[in-house]
Order: sequence, then structure tokens, then C-alpha cells
Amino acid sequence: MMPVGPPIAFAPRTLAIVGTGLLGTSLGLALGRLEPGIHRIGIGRRLEPLKVAHQRQAIDEFNTDLAGALAADWIVLAMPLASTGRVLCDLARGLEAGTRSGPGLVVMDLGSTKRDVLLQADRWLGELAGVYFVGCHPMAGGERQGPEAADGMLFAGKPLIITPNASTDARAKAEVVRFWEALGMRTLEMDAAEHDELVARVSHLPHIAAAAVAGLADFGRAAEVASTGFADMTRLAMGDSRIWTEILLSNRDKVLEAIEAVNHSIEGLREALENGNAGEVSRWLDEARSVRQAFDGLRGGGQSA
Amino acid sequence: MMPVGPPIAFAPRTLAIVGTGLLGTSLGLALGRLEPGIHRIGIGRRLEPLKVAHQRQAIDEFNTDLAGALAADWIVLAMPLASTGRVLCDLARGLEAGTRSGPGLVVMDLGSTKRDVLLQADRWLGELAGVYFVGCHPMAGGERQGPEAADGMLFAGKPLIITPNASTDARAKAEVVRFWEALGMRTLEMDAAEHDELVARVSHLPHIAAAAVAGLADFGRAAEVASTGFADMTRLAMGDSRIWTEILLSNRDKVLEAIEAVNHSIEGLREALENGNAGEVSRWLDEARSVRQAFDGLRGGGQSA
Repeated sequence: MMPVGPPIAFAPRTLAIVGTGLLGTSLGLALGRLEPGIHRIGIGRRLEPLKVAHQRQAIDEFNTDLAGALAADWIVLAMPLASTGRVLCDLARGLEAGTRSGPGLVVMDLGSTKRDVLLQADRWLGELAGVYFVGCHPMAGGERQGPEAADGMLFAGKPLIITPNASTDARAKAEVVRFWEALGMRTLEMDAAEHDELVARVSHLPHIAAAAVAGLADFGRAAEVASTGFADMTRLAMGDSRIWTEILLSNRDKVLEAIEAVNHSIEGLREALENGNAGEVSRWLDEARSVRQAFDGLRGGGQSA
Repeated sequence: MMPVGPPIAFAPRTLAIVGTGLLGTSLGLALGRLEPGIHRIGIGRRLEPLKVAHQRQAIDEFNTDLAGALAADWIVLAMPLASTGRVLCDLARGLEAGTRSGPGLVVMDLGSTKRDVLLQADRWLGELAGVYFVGCHPMAGGERQGPEAADGMLFAGKPLIITPNASTDARAKAEVVRFWEALGMRTLEMDAAEHDELVARVSHLPHIAAAAVAGLADFGRAAEVASTGFADMTRLAMGDSRIWTEILLSNRDKVLEAIEAVNHSIEGLREALENGNAGEVSRWLDEARSVRQAFDGLRGGGQSA
């Protein structure tokens, strides 16, 4: 078991948000509304997004130096996946330098894939006493990016997945659950490998399929003809390609498995069509339909309305 | 050129709707609101959908005998694709029997694919003087079916594609354009082969991809975790599988081409991922994104909000 470290700040008085893009700024806005007692420090490399977040009152102060985060009780890493390792490393160096005092530090990330991040967190923070890392993935977002697109209601009612591993402190995890639920999220827990396999199917593959279909619509009079079904089905394709490149590459093995599964499924339909096998085409469509309907049922139907 | 037939009823006084499902009943409702002078006759094999449509005041009278349609100035075929050939044949027999009198008869269909229907229309109605067939495809629908799901606003603001061929009478076509535009539709014209290729990409392929992705979500905690992006992307999969089997089979060659194109596209991404080629992954995503954004731009953006 983990050694018992310093006490964790139960309700953080100060919270640093590293990265004031869509997620970080939305978190700041939600905190401003629901937890106005928490002092929010925005951290980022570029001044412009920090200024926008500050103007929107999503953060109370900002700093382009990561050292500014060390004053906080909690740190939320809300920058792109590809920078997470570097920031964890810089954070570890700052903490080792020993300028920080006070109770134990909770660090969370908001990344869309979790195995990589947990490895990096163990690597950089694992040896530091009193630093508690908890991997989090809020299932919320949108095709628009940046602090301008932030929305204080982005997280409300959405799932938040926590991916504990052997190094996860149970008290820190309980505090993190309490934190997100206070912002209206439904928390659930699973291990990082299960998480990455699941999101490959319900998030990464849908993105790929939407993009593949959208890409083929550069064709004749598509825009005059396509109806709302097409628009809804392909909307994910408008997501930021830099962010999605990082997501797909960081979950490469599971994404490749999901692509293989969908190729196999479509091949079944293709054969049935080629053979003019109406029964088989219908069976294929029925199967998908019943899964999708069960999904609506489990979610109470309303969310897809 | 076509011989000059009997005059066409400019604004039909009576209109028969064959098939009172989602489309037929929605048409009846729209006519009731916008063209209350037109007497609407519902025709169908089963009594129940006719009764529902009548109860909803989408039709003024109904008849389970197709002969009841011969009293109308215009006939709209709104039944499933697979029945269209049979109904056109029955209609031709009824017209040959010569019980019908009055001005020229306009016949429209609302089918989702057009090459097959035009062949059948030429075959069965081509020799009949004073019968004017115009192939139509309203780009409107929904995952719910039947007269219960009908909506008098279903067609408003949506595209309607007219697919004329060599047998199409120019006056009849002009009347049909006027008819749909009075119901708030944007009409456009293309030939049946172009239509079928286009809808394979902007309607049939999206349906297939949505169903393939939805079918793979029968997996772990998918329903707990998937967010609105997944729900929107897969909603098409809830469409009626009988209707969709008919659509896909009646447009088999173009659907197979679209599947081949999407397979090819996804294979490009798969290779880039396998090679860890971030530049190539990003380029692939960017291409899809720019097509999808151009699509929103061409449609004024608002329709996807």
C-alpha cells in the first residue's frame, strides 16, 4: 500500500488550470458558478488564451510560468495530450526544487486516452511524497476549440471516467469524485486499458467514420442535397485535427482494433449486398438498430432527442 | 418529342396519396395546412394506417382499392420502393380499363432511389396518352416511421430532387415544381443516375457507417460513457430496416461503389496510424474537416447548429 502522505486539501482553496482551451476554460467557468470560493490560476505557454479566459472570468489570475501552479492545492492538466508528458516532467522538477509548502497536492489530467498518461504520471510523480495523481476523462467536448468556445455548462450531466491504477490514493480519488460531482458530472471508474478500448469504439471510431463519410461528400451537388441526417452524422469531422491526431496516435492499438472490427462488419454488409441477399442485409441493419435503440433506452432516450 | 396530351390539371382539385406512412401522411398534413382546397384521397392495402392518417386529418377520405386513385387529378406514390413496380403496373391496368375521364393525370413517386422507378414508370405508363410521370425525391425523413410519426412541417425548407428523363413532359414537370415549392421545398433537378450516385454518398453511405459504428457499441459500458457526439453520429442507425434494405438493394451498384470509396479512405488512415505518421493522420483529418466545413458554409451553417 501507499505510504500515508500529507493531508489532502479537502476542498481546494486554489486550483491551477494548465491550459485554457475549451476544457480548461469551461472548467474555470463552471467553478466560478458552482464553487466561487476556489481561487483559479490559469497557466499556459501563450498569453493570448490566458487573457481570453481571464476576460471571460474563467480564471482569477494567470501565469505563463508553470511554477505559478505550485502555489495551488490542486492542479488540473487541461492541455493537449502530446504536451502532458512534458508538463508532468516540468512539474516534477518544480516540486523537487522544493519551493512548494502546504498540504498534499492533487494533480488531475483531462486527457482523452489514459494508458499513456498514467505511465507518464507514474514515471514523473510516482516518487514524490504527497503528490496524488488521478487520471480523469470528462466525456464532453465539441468541434469548436479554444477559450472562446468554452461553456460553463459543458460538463453538466456528462460522464466523467476516473481511471485509477495501483499508485492511485483512495482518499485523493474520493476527493476527485466529489469535485466532479459538485460540477454536475456522473463519475464512473474503470481501468485505463478498458477505458482506452471503450473510447476507441464510442469516440475515436465514430470520429473516423464521420470524417471518412464527410470527406467523400466533396462531390457534385452534395451540399444542396444532403439533409440533417448527413449533417448530424458527420458533425464530429469538424473537430480540431491537431487534437484528434494526438488522440488517435496515443490510442493507436485500440483504434486499429476498432477499425478492423468496423471493416469486418461493413464487409459482411458488402457481401450481402453483392449477393442481393435481402434477408442478410436486413439482419445486419436490424442488429445495429437494436444496439442503437438499447443505447437510447439505457440513457433514457432523451439525450438523443 | 412527346405528343401533346390532354391538359394537365394546373392546381389539382383531387390528389390521391398511395401509402399513408411517414411521407404520405406528412404530405397530407402539409397540403391540409397550405393547400386546403385540394381534396386528399388516401389509398393503401391495409386499413389501419389509412384510419390513422384520416384521424390526423391528413386525408379527407380513404380507400383500400387502388381504383380509388383513378378519380384524382394527381397521384402521389408514397409507398415502399419495393412495391412501386407493382403499383405502377396495377395503375396502368386501371387506366387501360378506361374508367378514368377528365384532364391529363400527373403521377409522382417519392422513392429514395430513382433509376429503377423511372424504368418501371416508362414500362408501365410510357404508352398511356395523357399520363405524365415525374420522379421526385424529397430529402426529408426520420428514424420514426408510419402515420403516427408524420409531421406537416417535414418537407418545409428541405431539398426535393426531380429526376426527369426523356419521357418527362415539360409542363408536368413545371407543375410538379410549383406544387413542391408551394409546400416550402427547394427543388432541384438532376438525372436519375447522378441522383443515385449522389444519394449513395450523402444518404446511403452515412446510414451504413452509422449502423456499423452503432453495432460495435454493444460493448462494455458504452451506454454509460458515450456522449452526444456518438448519439448524433449513430442516430441514422435507428431507421426502419425493411425500408433501408429496399433502398440499399435498389441502389446496389452505387452503394457498393460508395463502400469501396470509404474503405479506401479508411485504409489510408489505417496505414498512417500503423506507421505512426502524424503528418499523414493530420492531413487525412484536415481534408475531411475542410469538406465538412465547406458543406456547413454552403448551407449557411445554421442547419447543423
